[in-house]
Amino acid sequence: MSDLINKKISQLKSGELSEKEFAKFLQHLPYNNMGNIKLDFHRQLRRGLPEVIYGKGKSLLQLEAIVQKYKDLGEEILITKLRADYFDSLRSSHPDLIYHERAEIVTFDKPPEIRVKGSVLVLSAGSSDEPIAEEAVVSAQYLGNHVAKEYDVGVACLARILDLQDKFNDHTVIIVVAGMEGALPSVVAGLTSTPVIAVPTSVGYGTNFNGIAALLSMLNSCSGGVTVTNIDNGFGAAYQATLINKKISR
Amino acid sequence: MSDLINKKISQLKSGELSEKEFAKFLQHLPYNNMGNIKLDFHRQLRRGLPEVIYGKGKSLLQLEAIVQKYKDLGEEILITKLRADYFDSLRSSHPDLIYHERAEIVTFDKPPEIRVKGSVLVLSAGSSDEPIAEEAVVSAQYLGNHVAKEYDVGVACLARILDLQDKFNDHTVIIVVAGMEGALPSVVAGLTSTPVIAVPTSVGYGTNFNGIAALLSMLNSCSGGVTVTNIDNGFGAAYQATLINKKISR
Amino acid sequence: MSDLINKKISQLKSGELSEKEFAKFLQHLPYNNMGNIKLDFHRQLRRGLPEVIYGKGKSLLQLEAIVQKYKDLGEEILITKLRADYFDSLRSSHPDLIYHERAEIVTFDKPPEIRVKGSVLVLSAGSSDEPIAEEAVVSAQYLGNHVAKEYDVGVACLARILDLQDKFNDHTVIIVVAGMEGALPSVVAGLTSTPVIAVPTSVGYGTNFNGIAALLSMLNSCSGGVTVTNIDNGFGAAYQATLINKKISR
Amino acid sequence: MSDLINKKISQLKSGELSEKEFAKFLQHLPYNNMGNIKLDFHRQLRRGLPEVIYGKGKSLLQLEAIVQKYKDLGEEILITKLRADYFDSLRSSHPDLIYHERAEIVTFDKPPEIRVKGSVLVLSAGSSDEPIAEEAVVSAQYLGNHVAKEYDVGVACLARILDLQDKFNDHTVIIVVAGMEGALPSVVAGLTSTPVIAVPTSVGYGTNFNGIAALLSMLNSCSGGVTVTNIDNGFGAAYQATLINKKISR
Amino acid sequence: MSDLINKKISQLKSGELSEKEFAKFLQHLPYNNMGNIKLDFHRQLRRGLPEVIYGKGKSLLQLEAIVQKYKDLGEEILITKLRADYFDSLRSSHPDLIYHERAEIVTFDKPPEIRVKGSVLVLSAGSSDEPIAEEAVVSAQYLGNHVAKEYDVGVACLARILDLQDKFNDHTVIIVVAGMEGALPSVVAGLTSTPVIAVPTSVGYGTNFNGIAALLSMLNSCSGGVTVTNIDNGFGAAYQATLINKKISR
Amino acid sequence: MSDLINKKISQLKSGELSEKEFAKFLQHLPYNNMGNIKLDFHRQLRRGLPEVIYGKGKSLLQLEAIVQKYKDLGEEILITKLRADYFDSLRSSHPDLIYHERAEIVTFDKPPEIRVKGSVLVLSAGSSDEPIAEEAVVSAQYLGNHVAKEYDVGVACLARILDLQDKFNDHTVIIVVAGMEGALPSVVAGLTSTPVIAVPTSVGYGTNFNGIAALLSMLNSCSGGVTVTNIDNGFGAAYQATLINKKISR
Amino acid sequence: MSDLINKKISQLKSGELSEKEFAKFLQHLPYNNMGNIKLDFHRQLRRGLPEVIYGKGKSLLQLEAIVQKYKDLGEEILITKLRADYFDSLRSSHPDLIYHERAEIVTFDKPPEIRVKGSVLVLSAGSSDEPIAEEAVVSAQYLGNHVAKEYDVGVACLARILDLQDKFNDHTVIIVVAGMEGALPSVVAGLTSTPVIAVPTSVGYGTNFNGIAALLSMLNSCSGGVTVTNIDNGFGAAYQATLINKKISR
Amino acid sequence: MSDLINKKISQLKSGELSEKEFAKFLQHLPYNNMGNIKLDFHRQLRRGLPEVIYGKGKSLLQLEAIVQKYKDLGEEILITKLRADYFDSLRSSHPDLIYHERAEIVTFDKPPEIRVKGSVLVLSAGSSDEPIAEEAVVSAQYLGNHVAKEYDVGVACLARILDLQDKFNDHTVIIVVAGMEGALPSVVAGLTSTPVIAVPTSVGYGTNFNGIAALLSMLNSCSGGVTVTNIDNGFGAAYQATLINKKISR
Repeated sequence: MSDLINKKISQLKSGELSEKEFAKFLQHLPYNNMGNIKLDFHRQLRRGLPEVIYGKGKSLLQLEAIVQKYKDLGEEILITKLRADYFDSLRSSHPDLIYHERAEIVTFDKPPEIRVKGSVLVLSAGSSDEPIAEEAVVSAQYLGNHVAKEYDVGVACLARILDLQDKFNDHTVIIVVAGMEGALPSVVAGLTSTPVIAVPTSVGYGTNFNGIAALLSMLNSCSGGVTVTNIDNGFGAAYQATLINKKISR
Repeated sequence: MSDLINKKISQLKSGELSEKEFAKFLQHLPYNNMGNIKLDFHRQLRRGLPEVIYGKGKSLLQLEAIVQKYKDLGEEILITKLRADYFDSLRSSHPDLIYHERAEIVTFDKPPEIRVKGSVLVLSAGSSDEPIAEEAVVSAQYLGNHVAKEYDVGVACLARILDLQDKFNDHTVIIVVAGMEGALPSVVAGLTSTPVIAVPTSVGYGTNFNGIAALLSMLNSCSGGVTVTNIDNGFGAAYQATLINKKISR
Repeated sequence: MSDLINKKISQLKSGELSEKEFAKFLQHLPYNNMGNIKLDFHRQLRRGLPEVIYGKGKSLLQLEAIVQKYKDLGEEILITKLRADYFDSLRSSHPDLIYHERAEIVTFDKPPEIRVKGSVLVLSAGSSDEPIAEEAVVSAQYLGNHVAKEYDVGVACLARILDLQDKFNDHTVIIVVAGMEGALPSVVAGLTSTPVIAVPTSVGYGTNFNGIAALLSMLNSCSGGVTVTNIDNGFGAAYQATLINKKISR
Repeated sequence: MSDLINKKISQLKSGELSEKEFAKFLQHLPYNNMGNIKLDFHRQLRRGLPEVIYGKGKSLLQLEAIVQKYKDLGEEILITKLRADYFDSLRSSHPDLIYHERAEIVTFDKPPEIRVKGSVLVLSAGSSDEPIAEEAVVSAQYLGNHVAKEYDVGVACLARILDLQDKFNDHTVIIVVAGMEGALPSVVAGLTSTPVIAVPTSVGYGTNFNGIAALLSMLNSCSGGVTVTNIDNGFGAAYQATLINKKISR
Repeated sequence: MSDLINKKISQLKSGELSEKEFAKFLQHLPYNNMGNIKLDFHRQLRRGLPEVIYGKGKSLLQLEAIVQKYKDLGEEILITKLRADYFDSLRSSHPDLIYHERAEIVTFDKPPEIRVKGSVLVLSAGSSDEPIAEEAVVSAQYLGNHVAKEYDVGVACLARILDLQDKFNDHTVIIVVAGMEGALPSVVAGLTSTPVIAVPTSVGYGTNFNGIAALLSMLNSCSGGVTVTNIDNGFGAAYQATLINKKISR
Repeated sequence: MSDLINKKISQLKSGELSEKEFAKFLQHLPYNNMGNIKLDFHRQLRRGLPEVIYGKGKSLLQLEAIVQKYKDLGEEILITKLRADYFDSLRSSHPDLIYHERAEIVTFDKPPEIRVKGSVLVLSAGSSDEPIAEEAVVSAQYLGNHVAKEYDVGVACLARILDLQDKFNDHTVIIVVAGMEGALPSVVAGLTSTPVIAVPTSVGYGTNFNGIAALLSMLNSCSGGVTVTNIDNGFGAAYQATLINKKISR
Repeated sequence: MSDLINKKISQLKSGELSEKEFAKFLQHLPYNNMGNIKLDFHRQLRRGLPEVIYGKGKSLLQLEAIVQKYKDLGEEILITKLRADYFDSLRSSHPDLIYHERAEIVTFDKPPEIRVKGSVLVLSAGSSDEPIAEEAVVSAQYLGNHVAKEYDVGVACLARILDLQDKFNDHTVIIVVAGMEGALPSVVAGLTSTPVIAVPTSVGYGTNFNGIAALLSMLNSCSGGVTVTNIDNGFGAAYQATLINKKISR
Repeated sequence: MSDLINKKISQLKSGELSEKEFAKFLQHLPYNNMGNIKLDFHRQLRRGLPEVIYGKGKSLLQLEAIVQKYKDLGEEILITKLRADYFDSLRSSHPDLIYHERAEIVTFDKPPEIRVKGSVLVLSAGSSDEPIAEEAVVSAQYLGNHVAKEYDVGVACLARILDLQDKFNDHTVIIVVAGMEGALPSVVAGLTSTPVIAVPTSVGYGTNFNGIAALLSMLNSCSGGVTVTNIDNGFGAAYQATLINKKISR
């Protein structure tokens, strides 16, 4: 089947096949079977967003094959949770890849365009939460959102939050990234009517239990309007924010 | 009291009241101090939704005072997690209250009106998850949403889910209520581009650990587009769905 | 030995023994051996505070014997965590006992006097946290402190907290009682230089895990100046506050 | 006793002892006592399967002695969970060993023969679950089963699973390997009457808790016909599948 | 659609529709939509076993409707985990139901027939594990298996187990039910080549943690050939045993 | 086989069989098969102690049958964890049973005799730990030990412990029963060369987690010479103490 | 910047600056916005203590920028939890920094002055708890307290503690640092009327669970007068002690 | 220093020293204060055993100082849990130290003598449990016990255990070391009247949770006569066994 796709891709490139015809072809093709890894082209059609590759735990060979395939298809790609040393190896065969260092995200060098109405505000509680906040910011940008960010605005200094308060209602989704006691989403949600997506981080020590303290805090928020992602899942929050913004854009 | 606020707002617009005077008025109205319970009227201004009373753990006296206060103010009310026997006592002094039995919710007898664009679809996995699903449905209705529901569509019989698949994208938010292994949100999110709010329930036994199995399953969903509430928090999901729909309605 | 004490008590009452001599006698008496229960009179000398009886799990017979013994000695008593139905039985033999209902505390009918400088402010987050907050308030009063209290000031409505902010530094200890996500102590500690003792409560449901969510939140507070007691241990916080105030009173 | 065995082995090799006689000798020999390690020859007789060596935590010396002993006896061997660097050391003294890299399994170079009726289908949810799936596949092959496999068929893309659905009933056991939310076994079991053995993997992050999320999901499966092994225990699933297939082969 | 089914049922009873035609009709009917509860008739076709109703958490009304529907269809039923007091209410409207008291299972009064080759041996460790063992026994019988049982054969007295040892290989599946330290499945699996399905029970106290100790013990069994069900899931073990025996019967 | 035993018992009573012959008969009889409950007579021979019945979770019928059987055999009995209301029912058919109320233990009315050298000292930390301490005391007495006890000697008042210190080395085993923070065994073990068996109790609240806090404290004791039983397992400690004292008595 | 503030305060006192102007000055000085890291100068006003930098998880660049900013402002600094290798890098650009090696704390080379009445006694249970105890000692010294310390005084040897007993009441706060079973705070609190701040450490193995055993032990202390910090949070204890001592110094 | 003590004891016996003077001598000798580490010489008097040094977490400097001190005093020493690389450093300054490699124990080169009656049998379940079993064996030998050992006798092959069964009663204590499902102590205790000390090991993977599965299994043992140590605490078991044997030796 992979031959068929390659043929279709050639036809697409040569103009033998129109973009519309190629899309139709893909609609009848459940997924691209690359041996043990199956790429889900239907997703783009079903969900309107490219497949995102979770980088951790994949071998370099698997990653290189995936990147090549998407490059051939002219598709966008977003690889998350890829450590810098892995990226260095990957770049040797694909020198045009961009590495978003703090976010640990890899993308192609095409600049993202704004695809949705609405906008996402990303807040982080402490400076140590920044990598996960950056994962959310970069993901949201590459998924086509307007993104604003304010970092290091934890509840230990309420003045910082109160200063920002007036902007909260201007956005359509607020992503709040916090470790330690995870109180920021509750405080923010109490000050706005914008839905809050809370991302617990594994920042902290001792009874933080790698983010469980923050997670439980967020799940038990006394303020309404808070839903929660897995610990350190900045991408997941950006993805959900994008789905919401796409609904707004209809 | 909302009338008073509206009157003040009119005066503000007409110039009868200066901005400073209006701010001062608000400053003295932060919340209604009923001794040890403080009702938050600012919330309506801040969030555009009435305060919701969490019924569990409050004494009958507290509940009666709260109901009376809201009745005097002509405000709406939504009391969640109120057991039937408590309601029976409460009704003796407030015979006009309505009890939504499966949902364990109390409301005034005013019919809710649709206040937002968009709509909410509530799915439940098993028939034992119905009470929490009903909590979500009744809450979403009284918060002003269009609501559709489909129950008993767990993953053990995929045919049921595949039958509904075409409707998923028509809604702006899908609330998925599931206990046991909590797999339904992952499956639903894989089939739609509508954001999914997952509500784990405490239904199950043994290693279900009162909903932890379902909660963890949902937090670790391999499908993007799933965020999670506390266990059994049907109201919380409805509240978040309402905030999203209000953004769509702008 | 119990005979010896009884004799000494008679002598004290009759004036045969001065209070000073009696105190000296007690100093040489490690504890009062009532069979299987040993009352610690040294504690009053060592710590300057009466022994407090943890009511839960003790039989009615044990409680009656303890009350009688303290009455004979003219000592103060504070029984905590005693359910109303137990108290009703206990009162039949000791009609002069006072029951502080919400606090579930039993005391003798002597009004407490102020014994320390400084003062304690007790805050509670939600109206459901009130019983534990009351346990702290009544305990602190009977241990001789000036006590102020403000309830229902959770982080979902920051206005309530900011209103109180100016008073925080006036007190020497602030006890903050909170369930659910337990964010209040972090916010309060960020606004004051008064030491905060945080008391997690078992209020909440689902992932609250009977107070663990709040406990972890408090132990991981991003604000300095927060130490924590066991879940629902309002008395423990009051006791610690008293020890601090006694140091201030030296 | 070890001398006796060596003597018997020599006799077997020289033809002094028939295979049947040697088997009889072994039947009367509970286990081979190699100092601190005891090899269980009875198992082959009791269970019809060779002893499998759990490689992790054994020293190189222990492993070399075990391999030598089995070689002397002409017995098959399956060493599981042996990291590549350990194998490299082991191979220097036993160059004829085969290393199944992704599966982290060591075997002798004899090709396995089919010993049982029935067949095993191994499914894996994500590409990161592949090592454990391979452990199951290689184990099942070397234990004498027909084995088929399909990888990367997680519930986020149901189309992949529905495509395979028709094959499910053709096999006598299905092993489903999944990390993250662990929903795949529930979905598969709902589509077939073949017994499903679910293997949770430690793939994931945050609240996955190294496989606990997947494990709990599988134990709480709403579909009947699912039993579960330890986390990452691909071999254990293959072993149980073999016992089932042996029953079918009677 | 429910009208259609009722009509078809009438036609079936009147002979207007043959059994074969009715089966064909059902094949094209995904499931029976009873409002909020959906019965899965396809399951019988897909899996060859009747739908089993999990009794706990269902209301009496729901249960009565389910029983009536199955009675109308002439289908078998197995309701598990139904407490005696619930059954007493249910029997008043359906006097022909049978209650298996120790097993807490409800069935229709038709005697079960043997439908599969192979047989199931159910072992229990202590006399307190008997209810769950009985749930397995009754379930296995009503699902059409030959069933043998031996209770109170825990590892504290090995003699009891060694006495039974010779019978182990005669069965095609052994279900081992054990609470406390859960050691019995490991010992049994070490003595046989029959696959063992281990059912941890919540019997015990303290660190048993309602069955977690036994569950972990079973998941970590040093003997191969053990897979595990949820705690107290006697039915689940019987169901899996039936699927295995059906494979043997092909 | 039960007939055979009954016949043998008759013969024993009639003198047809000597006690020695009867013992020999029992030696060849692995256990007494009472249908689903198997009594282990070999244990007395193997371990020199009567079988102890764990009362919790057994039905009244089971208990009555067990009591009757032991009465017929003239054997001693010790039923632990039997709630008072169960005993009241049991006594109606067996009026000669003794109930040790605080210990929740049932015995026959024969006074125990001292069978071992050495002696057991039972300490408890708080008055709420008394029931479990009593379970240890009564069990140790009925198993034939010299027993001394000292209650309410927790670490909050070291004077009590230091007073007892001199007696610690006089005993051969010390059982220390403690809930809450479980510090007593560490302190006691630091003061003596007598082995300490620590029994955590479920006394406490909040983060005590029904005895886990005490259990962990005891397992992590910084003092050598402490081993631990299950939570609330006073009998288990007494049993182990008896085995130790029997070794001393050889 | 503190100079600027002091200047402004002088101006305020002299009347050069009105209260309103001073407030405005403060309003524009909420915190120093260094891009993504915000330094909280208000804290000094609100709490009277310099901001402390949690070193773990911050990048070298972030740390260097922070150090430079504070140096420019002439402010004090305390960086906690900074590993030796990080410090070596940091010192290359800031050679005047001091590293407190066991405490893993970095400070400027200004000697601390005593700023509060009262004093802090730091106790540690075992020699392995020393690093956390040192963190408390150095922190308390740099926050301006009189500090005394006694290490290796665990409960396994009560003599050591009893020797120190007389000094306990001389201090205004006792910080007790302990790992393993965490019994020391309970014993110390039982011997004094000085408030005890308990710091659990992650010292131990197995069921210590990285400090959870000690934490639970401390939260469940049977002695009053114990509050608890996060695991390994020596700084947090010193900070709270300072707040208490500042109250004493008013 | 032991010489000094012995001299004083001789003087006491000869009457040269009164009992009161001797007590006074001891009072001034509570422990040797080496700065932050305090060696407990009283322990030898109180418990009759040398202080044992827990090697993990101590710095090389601390260890060298301790070794030197004991050498000077002519005292025995036992350092546990000391990794090989640490020992290599330690040996450079103390070349006469012996390293027991598998046990990770350091001792002086004096051969141990038998000091107690009775004997200890150490059993281990799997070959991976050997290091902890060796820790128990070496510790027990150096504490003066007769020690026997049998390794790799797990329950998967009962024949091995039944072979040893006859020896069990010959010993006065049996230490059973097991990881994975931890079933061995229950089986052994069921076969003997010798007290069993169970040592869970962190051997296993997945749901073994670093030894928790084995620990819970042992705490919940259905066989009487089992008490438990911390995970991997082979030394602790040996220490307790020694205390028991010393009682036997009186």
